[in-house]
Amino acid sequence: MNEPTLETKQIFQGRVISVQVDTVRLPNGGTSTREIVRHPGAVAVLALLEGRLLVVEQYRKPLERMQVEIPAGKLEPGEDPQEAALRELEEETGYKARSIRHLRSFSTSPGFAEEVIHLYAADDLEPTEVHLDEDEFLTCEAITLEQAERFMEEGKIFDAKTVLAVYMWKQFVRTGQF
Amino acid sequence: MNEPTLETKQIFQGRVISVQVDTVRLPNGGTSTREIVRHPGAVAVLALLEGRLLVVEQYRKPLERMQVEIPAGKLEPGEDPQEAALRELEEETGYKARSIRHLRSFSTSPGFAEEVIHLYAADDLEPTEVHLDEDEFLTCEAITLEQAERFMEEGKIFDAKTVLAVYMWKQFVRTGQF
Repeated sequence: MNEPTLETKQIFQGRVISVQVDTVRLPNGGTSTREIVRHPGAVAVLALLEGRLLVVEQYRKPLERMQVEIPAGKLEPGEDPQEAALRELEEETGYKARSIRHLRSFSTSPGFAEEVIHLYAADDLEPTEVHLDEDEFLTCEAITLEQAERFMEEGKIFDAKTVLAVYMWKQFVRTGQF
Repeated sequence: MNEPTLETKQIFQGRVISVQVDTVRLPNGGTSTREIVRHPGAVAVLALLEGRLLVVEQYRKPLERMQVEIPAGKLEPGEDPQEAALRELEEETGYKARSIRHLRSFSTSPGFAEEVIHLYAADDLEPTEVHLDEDEFLTCEAITLEQAERFMEEGKIFDAKTVLAVYMWKQFVRTGQF
């Protein structure tokens, strides 16, 4: 089963996303439209520093509030996801990881968005310097599992990648496996 | 800290999403733009039938492949999320839940999308009838935790809400708490 594209209409080309509307052939022979947000993909990092999770707090305009999230950022054109994960971790938190490994990749909103996040685990961290993008304002902290759970209850941790990372971390604490 | 809107430019109004570009005031006094996908919000249901998870398989055009996901769908205007969860569960799987409760809500892509998913746990299920939207083609099955983990390894389960639901289910099996 698939949905062959009959026509693609480009709607918007932005700095981060682009938007198109595809007219598709349905399995029953009819047609429909699919609104699709194209996105270069992103990386996120579950980084543990002496048993605490590195998180960043920043304003998220689509939600109109501050959010606490694991370090993350979008892929640059042609960039290797693991390199991007190391880069974003260092830029946002000021820590360089001597050890990193891929945990899992996932789609954020398969109904309308192409975005895939590649999640990495980083450890053996060494302090360097924070380097933020010019329109990026965030602060970094290292939180315990109990703090992470409280932040989830309070809605300060609210995004799918960070909630998932906390569940994976809890499993890791219990079983040694993410 | 916030990012006051100086100007909003409407880009697109679709059936599911709309897109706008906001010009915002940054904390340092400068300005930047934020590309924002507006979305009515969605519900998803972790429904257990005799210890198995109800999932649906469907083609996801933004990913150009079949995906296995927990039942989900977007909120209708003014709809109560719990009612929507019961409705989507019944429409997509043909099961009515006698018991449902809110587990957690989360943002899927806080960097560019407004979408929030409200996740519910449903049980005490009773078979009724499947009622799909006219452009919706999916099949339902009930899978074990071992199957769910294999589907994650194979990439058949790949979206954030379903991966998170599987981690929450695993925790529930171990501890009795989601």
